[in-house]
Amino acid sequence: MTSISAIDAIRSQRAIREFSDEPVSEEAVTQLIQAAIRAPSASNKQPWHFLVVRDAEAKRKIGLWYMDSVYSYSGQERPSDGITEPHPIMSAPVLIFACIDAVDVADRLTLGASIFPAAQNLMLAARSMGLGTTLTTLHRPHQDEIRALLGIPESVETAALIPVGYPGGDQHFGGSRRRPAKELTYYERWGATK
Amino acid sequence: MTSISAIDAIRSQRAIREFSDEPVSEEAVTQLIQAAIRAPSASNKQPWHFLVVRDAEAKRKIGLWYMDSVYSYSGQERPSDGITEPHPIMSAPVLIFACIDAVDVADRLTLGASIFPAAQNLMLAARSMGLGTTLTTLHRPHQDEIRALLGIPESVETAALIPVGYPGGDQHFGGSRRRPAKELTYYERWGATK
Repeated sequence: MTSISAIDAIRSQRAIREFSDEPVSEEAVTQLIQAAIRAPSASNKQPWHFLVVRDAEAKRKIGLWYMDSVYSYSGQERPSDGITEPHPIMSAPVLIFACIDAVDVADRLTLGASIFPAAQNLMLAARSMGLGTTLTTLHRPHQDEIRALLGIPESVETAALIPVGYPGGDQHFGGSRRRPAKELTYYERWGATK
Repeated sequence: MTSISAIDAIRSQRAIREFSDEPVSEEAVTQLIQAAIRAPSASNKQPWHFLVVRDAEAKRKIGLWYMDSVYSYSGQERPSDGITEPHPIMSAPVLIFACIDAVDVADRLTLGASIFPAAQNLMLAARSMGLGTTLTTLHRPHQDEIRALLGIPESVETAALIPVGYPGGDQHFGGSRRRPAKELTYYERWGATK
């Protein structure tokens, strides 16, 4: 474990979308999930589960569904002979589903308060270990197929799908573009910037 | 800014529910929001806004609404003469609303993927600066009143309300209880622990 500061990890985290072949150890995955479960959750109920997928055939299927969602989202026309190439990001050495028990929660936005902080902890821990991640949710239109594939109960939401691996190609940490904080920070009243 | 490691910040973050009178500088608040906006968001749209409240009367009103939600949530009977004492956590030196543009997003759980990682960044940065926070959402049943009070448009969701201050009373970082990670980590298939 390196000793990168919290602020440096936060500042230099960015989506890593291409991975090297360097394997990700089981111990590293455990450390990521140890970090995830330190996050807050409503009433400290810890309603989370983490499903780790390394199997190539499972990743291929997930990657095809993910690619289908990308076509839907972008409005691009699908290939006339169907989608045959899985989305490359889903060929990462490890995929982690961040899941949440979701029965009886009417306010679905608030439900996210008990899983996305855990996902962010996982991604910051990954950053501090030199591992790249991306927070993805485009698997969700195909959640039912994914549930069937991996045996996930209907009472559980696959809130996020996080590919994990060492950065490959020209991928690197840091330097993501952001709007200036002062434009979106208001004082005492909506719209009142300083 | 201290140089606490990312892992130490993650491990020692916990909800701080009582605050000292030590003021929180404007610069510190800016640093928190600078950390928040490094978080990922869907398609890097950064659909967030942060509303900083220090005004005592506004905090008092928010604290009364929050207390009302606590009664609802716990099923406790309200005082016969009405709620006259605001919830003490809302008397923190600073309240920060983490808000998100929420028009046209059908999947409300997924909406959270673009605001709760930012909230977690803010809370980890706070931890690294010695500032305590709690991630709260119980203001949401009274969101309409809060919108009216602070001029927040209806197109915006106040996803989280984060009190910020230096820990007071016997409050301290670290040592939060968690279920062991190995019980909730599955490999290749739901329920398959190692």
